[in-house]
Amino acid sequence: MHEELAEKVTAGSIRAAARLITLVENRDPAAREVMKSIHRAAGKAQIWGFTGPPGAGKSTLVDAVTTKLREQGKTVGIIAIDPTSPFTGGAILGDRIRMNRHSLDEGVFIRSMATRGHLGGLTRATVDAVNILDALGRDVVMIETVGVGQDEVDIVKTAHTSVVILVPTLGDDIQAMKAGILEIGDVFLINKADLDGATRTQVEIEMMLDLAPRRAAWRPPVLKTIANAGEGITETLEAIARHRDYLLSSNELGAFNRRRSEWELLGLLQEQMTHFALAEVLRPGDLDRHLDAITARQTDPFSVIDEIITKLRRGGSAAR
Amino acid sequence: MHEELAEKVTAGSIRAAARLITLVENRDPAAREVMKSIHRAAGKAQIWGFTGPPGAGKSTLVDAVTTKLREQGKTVGIIAIDPTSPFTGGAILGDRIRMNRHSLDEGVFIRSMATRGHLGGLTRATVDAVNILDALGRDVVMIETVGVGQDEVDIVKTAHTSVVILVPTLGDDIQAMKAGILEIGDVFLINKADLDGATRTQVEIEMMLDLAPRRAAWRPPVLKTIANAGEGITETLEAIARHRDYLLSSNELGAFNRRRSEWELLGLLQEQMTHFALAEVLRPGDLDRHLDAITARQTDPFSVIDEIITKLRRGGSAAR
Repeated sequence: MHEELAEKVTAGSIRAAARLITLVENRDPAAREVMKSIHRAAGKAQIWGFTGPPGAGKSTLVDAVTTKLREQGKTVGIIAIDPTSPFTGGAILGDRIRMNRHSLDEGVFIRSMATRGHLGGLTRATVDAVNILDALGRDVVMIETVGVGQDEVDIVKTAHTSVVILVPTLGDDIQAMKAGILEIGDVFLINKADLDGATRTQVEIEMMLDLAPRRAAWRPPVLKTIANAGEGITETLEAIARHRDYLLSSNELGAFNRRRSEWELLGLLQEQMTHFALAEVLRPGDLDRHLDAITARQTDPFSVIDEIITKLRRGGSAAR
Repeated sequence: MHEELAEKVTAGSIRAAARLITLVENRDPAAREVMKSIHRAAGKAQIWGFTGPPGAGKSTLVDAVTTKLREQGKTVGIIAIDPTSPFTGGAILGDRIRMNRHSLDEGVFIRSMATRGHLGGLTRATVDAVNILDALGRDVVMIETVGVGQDEVDIVKTAHTSVVILVPTLGDDIQAMKAGILEIGDVFLINKADLDGATRTQVEIEMMLDLAPRRAAWRPPVLKTIANAGEGITETLEAIARHRDYLLSSNELGAFNRRRSEWELLGLLQEQMTHFALAEVLRPGDLDRHLDAITARQTDPFSVIDEIITKLRRGGSAAR
């Protein structure tokens, strides 16, 4: 079964890719063998991340970029990390509108993934989903995510080029915003640049970049866009292409790909080692007993972990 | 040494607590034995979480709540989760101002923790830090964090009572904001209620709460505050006290404490199992070799993990 699904994905089947993403999103063990099979087929796509605060116009911008890429004949995959509300049970409004717009175009695959679960589950599912769209043969895979949260920052860091989308703001907001967002941008956009303060915001970001210790030879450009009017989109794509050239010419792409492998392996290791401990080191009922004792403060989590590790050192699951 | 540090913390030494928090923040192994020793002394503090978007006035509000608690003779511990910018290298402005204000009061312990690292490191350090301030004997421990990120949401979920701080906004922003934030609030505050739209925002939040499937018998109140003028702070403390009464009378507190133990244990398990695999299952050089092979797409992360787990099943670290 899994070989068939893998073959369909690498042959370009959108339905197969959608199905596989559902499996990885649910952290379904059935996905593992398929992911192994498609790994070799991935590694060709350009991966771009788009992030910014709520209301910055990320969806509209990614939409405009998609339209331009389609005009150039490129195929597109989009993973929208969607803060799901239990109140609505689904995606926020912007994504729904956008999905309709490209819904008849087979060259655009859009998938929303919810920020549910914890302990990094979303991050791992997103990395897998990007690999799936890569193996599907998409020329460009875009990750779109809101926010300044650590998970979201981590996700955007897995992209070759990270685009940070801001809006014209007053001085105070920039203070708050730069924390967590400025550090990750390879390209900065001041979207909704027809609003008051766009140039001032652009200048402030430029100044902050000037003051920052330079991480690399690349100096992030700061562009003005008006995504809903299609303005600045060509320039955005040119900036991303320049960053790509920089990555290639400076050999940073190789280093980046290795960091990406490390990140992927360590995340998976964390997940699977935890599963292993819960399923094969602890006996049924052990977890409940430990939790009761910790809650009653008869023991503490650190001592319980020591016990588990000691068991593993003595012979792992054989002790069962 | 660790017994001495543990005794000092439980005897109320602020310096010892600060030192121990630094150890857990660095995930220093030396902290483990101390954390074991103080576990029994913790479990008495009320733990409150405060979250909201940048610019909502969280620091000012937590400051006003602190002043009121001090008037009541209660001791306070504050963990401020601070999105660190590599541009400034430190905390954002608001925290620095506040720290000065209470800096001469031994009854207020404020500690900023940076959102650095990934794979959940901050979350675990925060849980530990809260336990330390609890063991230190603080009556109330407050966690303050920006944002809608999953990590931040997770952190706030570890509080007995979660307070979500919003500001008067236009309709569109509420759409974007509610996702991720509304789900976690036990108490909602519309801060800066002297700004236009405060009542409208309050009504919209109330409506959204009415429409939401009720998770529990508790209906989150929605209050208006003007933190920098001290308005609404007494009402905020009353709302938190009512939520406390609800937790106690409904027996939800017991269930909550057990969930907190589970969360704490699983987070630690994830961390320590990963360390174990890297330090005791892999041989020196193994990780580099695996990463090279994954990057060259000769193998894939899933196959590498399978190899590690197989090794563990055959006898764990003994295979070394």
